[in-house]
Amino acid sequence: MTHRLRGPVRIVGTGLLGTSIGLGLAARGVEVQLADASPTAMRLAADYGAGRLAEPGDAPELIVVAVPPDVTAQVVAQELAAFPDAVVTDVASVKAVPLAQLRELGADISRYLGSHPMAGRERSGALAGSGDLFVGRPWVIAGHDEISYERGSLVDDLILDLGAVPIESTPDEHDRSVAIISHLPQLVSSLMAARLADAPDEALRLAGGGVRDVTRIAASDPALWIQILGANAPAVVDQLRALQGDLATLVDALDRLDASGSRKAVADALRAGNDGVARLPGKHGTHTRFTRVQVRVDDRPGQLARLLVDIGDAGVNLEDVRMDHAEGAQFGVAEITVLPEAVRHLHDALEALGWQVVA
Amino acid sequence: MTHRLRGPVRIVGTGLLGTSIGLGLAARGVEVQLADASPTAMRLAADYGAGRLAEPGDAPELIVVAVPPDVTAQVVAQELAAFPDAVVTDVASVKAVPLAQLRELGADISRYLGSHPMAGRERSGALAGSGDLFVGRPWVIAGHDEISYERGSLVDDLILDLGAVPIESTPDEHDRSVAIISHLPQLVSSLMAARLADAPDEALRLAGGGVRDVTRIAASDPALWIQILGANAPAVVDQLRALQGDLATLVDALDRLDASGSRKAVADALRAGNDGVARLPGKHGTHTRFTRVQVRVDDRPGQLARLLVDIGDAGVNLEDVRMDHAEGAQFGVAEITVLPEAVRHLHDALEALGWQVVA
Repeated sequence: MTHRLRGPVRIVGTGLLGTSIGLGLAARGVEVQLADASPTAMRLAADYGAGRLAEPGDAPELIVVAVPPDVTAQVVAQELAAFPDAVVTDVASVKAVPLAQLRELGADISRYLGSHPMAGRERSGALAGSGDLFVGRPWVIAGHDEISYERGSLVDDLILDLGAVPIESTPDEHDRSVAIISHLPQLVSSLMAARLADAPDEALRLAGGGVRDVTRIAASDPALWIQILGANAPAVVDQLRALQGDLATLVDALDRLDASGSRKAVADALRAGNDGVARLPGKHGTHTRFTRVQVRVDDRPGQLARLLVDIGDAGVNLEDVRMDHAEGAQFGVAEITVLPEAVRHLHDALEALGWQVVA
Repeated sequence: MTHRLRGPVRIVGTGLLGTSIGLGLAARGVEVQLADASPTAMRLAADYGAGRLAEPGDAPELIVVAVPPDVTAQVVAQELAAFPDAVVTDVASVKAVPLAQLRELGADISRYLGSHPMAGRERSGALAGSGDLFVGRPWVIAGHDEISYERGSLVDDLILDLGAVPIESTPDEHDRSVAIISHLPQLVSSLMAARLADAPDEALRLAGGGVRDVTRIAASDPALWIQILGANAPAVVDQLRALQGDLATLVDALDRLDASGSRKAVADALRAGNDGVARLPGKHGTHTRFTRVQVRVDDRPGQLARLLVDIGDAGVNLEDVRMDHAEGAQFGVAEITVLPEAVRHLHDALEALGWQVVA
């Protein structure tokens, strides 16, 4: 496989992200040098194929610091001092605090450019690592004025070599953005799911696709999230306060629904939700609205595959597919997302082949 | 197709639900009589195949009232009076208010048993109807003491004939349950999505699967939801107040994160979310936890089908599948949910066939 990076890359921290970066670069033929405060973790990542152990005399061109957010600045400063010819990036999920800490430490930030891959997993550690973890994911570059374009382009090369999509930003903009698009949804999902923790069994039996979607990411690791939230607390608190305001308005309106303006306030809240969800980028960044077609799929191996083969044979390109199983039913419903103009043809083609098109 | 209902069924209200019930029953050979305040809507449903127009002298065994919640009790009372030998049910998404209104009206509730199918669509009206809308979905029966078992069993027959899963409950229990499991998730999703309505474009570009899941149902119809929420406001307000309390605790903790106990409070909120989501019933009502495997799928027709065929050939049964596309990428990631014991075999089988197993 070809790659853009020419010199060796040193990776400091061989957890999930560091190991995954090492695996991805090594697979593309880049020389990777691994370092970790834990010799055991470092050897594990090397055995796994993420690179070789770092050695005295190593002269990396690029250093990737992949350690927990609360020690990121300290490790970046050490690396900048130890390798005066190298460019250093980090992959912490917050960007303003580490840069400010580096300035306080008097580090040479003309060689530092922070970044943040929008990729992760529920599991952590080297053994959860994968060279393809970043493939197709946005990877933010938190730019600042004190690094030259030429040096910064090494971070672009890293991102492109790993198959990710570089997104230019700044530390403050990044932190505000992830507060809205990542940290707030996590907390909203957790708060909703927490209401289910002591809900009656009767209520849980009625769960459908809606509540499942809203609470899926509530299964995330609290230990990881307390670090992320801790390093971006002011921006997250701003978002939560705005949410509190909206929630208070909604509760007041529902609580005195016959008062003048109350029904309009509830409708406005629901409409604002319509507007917000419509802004999420669709496939390939477009805002095209797709149409969903639901098809009954019996609960036998290969049935969903057979359906998708039939859809392919009909010449229809799937935008998305998901399966839903109801409690107690011995079959599920496949929700197929396609371009609106394909719906009628798809419907007819599937029914002709004996599929039950539910809706 | 066989069916349990023997006598004719009269359907009052030929919107999405009424038409879908008519289509489902007619397809199974049940005689369906359609009535609607709008002659146009009624004829449209009949033309669509949902049954024949109601006629003077009809003697239905079961009447299904499928009109908006705010007129449900009035129409049920009229039907009970007009057809003194028939059992009447309704499909409104709230159950306590209509029963109380029927008592106030002095209706003969020894022939009334309310119910609520947990099925719906974003679109409304007869043309969105489908005879399979209820297949595999929970359908709540809001039981009360004043109807005999024998009469009530007609409603069971209706539900089973439509392929749905009957869930026994009471009006109050139902309303409390849907406040938690349906109405609260809807509002939480709308509130979260509303925060995106005026978020900067930069933030939207970083959207991943998490925020998409949390906000999907925020696309629902405000006009429908204002009716649903209006008829269950006290139970919904109770849930929203509990959420407000949890949110206030979380904001306080994040706002003074270095104070004693603050980090624990944030972790507790995240852990309560873990506990809640773990209570949602899995496939077929079990609580088994599944494992997700992610596979890279190029953006060409038939690729996902080919993957699923390969999974079937490997003898692995899919629990769930979904596709995710990153902005700007010319391929997606298929997330395959399988039993944990199948993961290693699936991973090896797919890699042997040249698939990139991402994680």
